[in-house]
Amino acid sequence: MKVNNKHYRTIWMEGSSVFMIEQNLLPFEFKIFESTNYIETCRAIKTMIVRGAGAIGAAAGFALAQATLEAAKDNYENDINIAKETIEATRPTARNLFTATERVYLAAKQSKEQAVKEAQKIADEDAETSLTIGKYGNNLIKSGFGIETHCNAGWLAFVDHGTALAPIYLAHQSRKEIFVYIDETRPRNQGAKLTAWELQNENIPHAIIADNAGAHLMSKGKIDIIITGADRIAKNGDTANKIGTLEKAITANYYGIPFYIAAPKSTFDMNCSSGKEIIIEERDQDEVLFQIGQTNQNKLEKILIAAPGSEAINPAFDVTPAELITGIITEKGIIKPTENEIIRLFA
Amino acid sequence: MKVNNKHYRTIWMEGSSVFMIEQNLLPFEFKIFESTNYIETCRAIKTMIVRGAGAIGAAAGFALAQATLEAAKDNYENDINIAKETIEATRPTARNLFTATERVYLAAKQSKEQAVKEAQKIADEDAETSLTIGKYGNNLIKSGFGIETHCNAGWLAFVDHGTALAPIYLAHQSRKEIFVYIDETRPRNQGAKLTAWELQNENIPHAIIADNAGAHLMSKGKIDIIITGADRIAKNGDTANKIGTLEKAITANYYGIPFYIAAPKSTFDMNCSSGKEIIIEERDQDEVLFQIGQTNQNKLEKILIAAPGSEAINPAFDVTPAELITGIITEKGIIKPTENEIIRLFA
Repeated sequence: MKVNNKHYRTIWMEGSSVFMIEQNLLPFEFKIFESTNYIETCRAIKTMIVRGAGAIGAAAGFALAQATLEAAKDNYENDINIAKETIEATRPTARNLFTATERVYLAAKQSKEQAVKEAQKIADEDAETSLTIGKYGNNLIKSGFGIETHCNAGWLAFVDHGTALAPIYLAHQSRKEIFVYIDETRPRNQGAKLTAWELQNENIPHAIIADNAGAHLMSKGKIDIIITGADRIAKNGDTANKIGTLEKAITANYYGIPFYIAAPKSTFDMNCSSGKEIIIEERDQDEVLFQIGQTNQNKLEKILIAAPGSEAINPAFDVTPAELITGIITEKGIIKPTENEIIRLFA
Repeated sequence: MKVNNKHYRTIWMEGSSVFMIEQNLLPFEFKIFESTNYIETCRAIKTMIVRGAGAIGAAAGFALAQATLEAAKDNYENDINIAKETIEATRPTARNLFTATERVYLAAKQSKEQAVKEAQKIADEDAETSLTIGKYGNNLIKSGFGIETHCNAGWLAFVDHGTALAPIYLAHQSRKEIFVYIDETRPRNQGAKLTAWELQNENIPHAIIADNAGAHLMSKGKIDIIITGADRIAKNGDTANKIGTLEKAITANYYGIPFYIAAPKSTFDMNCSSGKEIIIEERDQDEVLFQIGQTNQNKLEKILIAAPGSEAINPAFDVTPAELITGIITEKGIIKPTENEIIRLFA
C-alpha cells in the first residue's frame, strides 16, 4: 500500500535484515525500523513495533529465517531450536506466529536458503490472501456507498491490503465513489489513528466518528454496508472481534444494513464450536482512563480523561453471534456464517 | 448532593451574589465561583461555568433577580428589559432559560423582593422535580441491579439530584446494592468526567466503560436497566438525547433489557409531533479529534488522538424512537412513550 505515494509492505526482508513500519509511532510519525538480527526482530514483535495477525506471522517467519543465517555451522540445529522457542515466546497467543515458525523450521532443516525462501513465501501468501479477500469483498460495494468500519483490519495488520479494508481499496481503485465512516474505536483508537492514516494515504474520502455516532448515521441512511475484521471465528460462525463490533452488528440488524466480516481461513478456529467458548480478555483499565496523543508542540503526551480515582472495566473483545452476520468474506469466497458452509470451506 | 461529604447545590443565591460550582474545571478541580452581578452570571452561562438544562434555568432566573437589585431607581423598567434580553442571548437554544426569565420578569414588575423570591422558587422547584423523578425511578431498581447510564443527567445538570441519576441516588440511600456502568460518552466524556465524579462523591459503586462495551456487558447479563436523560421529547415519545443513546436503546431492545428516559415535564415539546422534526446539531470536529485531560504534572492539556489531517463528523445528539423506550420517568409518575399518555401528562 501507499505511504506518501510510495508502495510499502508492512514488513519485508532484504539480505539478512528485516524492515518494518514502526507501528507504535503511527499516525504521528512514519519511520522504517531495520532489524539486523533475529533477537531484534523478536523485540520488535514484543514491543508491538509490528502488530496485527498477518504481520506478526510474517515477522516470526522472517525472524526464524534470520536465525538460520546467524546460526553457527557446528551448532546449527541447536541454534535453530533455541531461536524457534525464543520467537514463539514473544506473543504466545498469536496463532499465525506458530504456523509461520513451524513452516520455516521445516524448511530450515533443508538449508538456510530454503528457510529464507519459505519466510518470504509466508509474507507473499499473506499479501495474496488479503488481495483475494479484497476482490470478493469489492463485489459487495456499489458506487455511492457509505461504508462503516470498526478498528483497524487494514494493511498495517497484515503484510499488504488488509482484510476489512481490502475491499475498500479495490472499490476505490476500480473508481467506485465511496465514503468511509471510521469508528474511532475506543479505547485504543485504532480506527482514528491507524485506519484513518491508511485511508488518507490512499486518498479515500473518509471521516472519523465517535463510536456513539454509528446508529445515528444508520438511521439517516448514510451507511450501506459495514465491514469489520475478526480475531477468531468459531465453527458455528460466532465471531470475536474488537470491543464494539457486537454493538455495530446489532444496530445494523435493526436497520437492515448488511454486516460483513472479512477474514482469512486462518482466523477460523475449528476447535471452537461456538462463541460461548471464547474467553474475553480484560485489559488494563488505564486504556479507558487515559489517552495518548500529540500536543500542539508535536510531543506525545498521556492524559487522564476521567474523574480521578474512578475505575474502569475494559473488555478488549466481544462476540457477535452468527445470526447478526450477513456473510464472511474469505480468500475462498463469501460464505454464510453457518457450520455447514464453514465446514465446506475447510473440505 | 455531596462533595467531600458536604451538601451542595449546583447553583444558589445569597444576598446579591450567585454562587455556582465551576463545572468546566471538573472533575480535576472543585471550586465555587461567586458572581457578584448579573453580567458576570451571564458570562458564566455563556462560558459553561454552569451547564445543563435545569442549572441554566436557575442561573438565568438568578441573573435577572441580580439585575433587579442592580437596576437604577429612575430607570428600573428599562434596565430590567435590557437585562432580560442580555440573559436570553447567552444560550438562545436553552428552553429552561426563557421560562425562568419570563417568570422572574413578571415578578420583577411587582418588586425586587418578589423577583429574588421567584428566582429562588425556580431553583427550589427544579430540585424538587428531580427528587420526585428519583422517587418514581427508584421503584424500578431492585437490590443487586447493574445499571447503565449515558452522559451526565446528574445533579450537575440541575440544581440538585438530577434526572437519570436521581433514581440511582435514592436506590443507594435506601440501601439497595447497585453497581453503575457509566458510558464514558464520547466525544465530550461527560460520563467519565462528570457522572463518575458525582457517583464517587456519593460513594456509589461504579465503573467507567468505553461506549463500545455496552452490548458486551448486556450479552453477559451484567445490565438490568438503562436510564438516561433527555434533551427534548416529542409528542409521540421520540426522544432526542446525547449521541449514542440510540445505540444503547437498540442494543437494550435486542437483549430485552428495560430502557428508561428520566426527564421533567419541561423537556416535552408538545409543538414537536415526532422525532423526524428534530434537527440534529453538528458540533465542531475537534471534539472528536482532540481530547482534553490532565497530565501527570496535574496540568490540563489538549492532545490530538487521531491521524493528523483526517476529518471527523460530530453529530451531538440522536433521536431514539418511542418504540425502543420502555417508559419515561417524570415528576408526575412513569408513563409509556405514547401520544395518549403524553397528552394526559399535560391535561
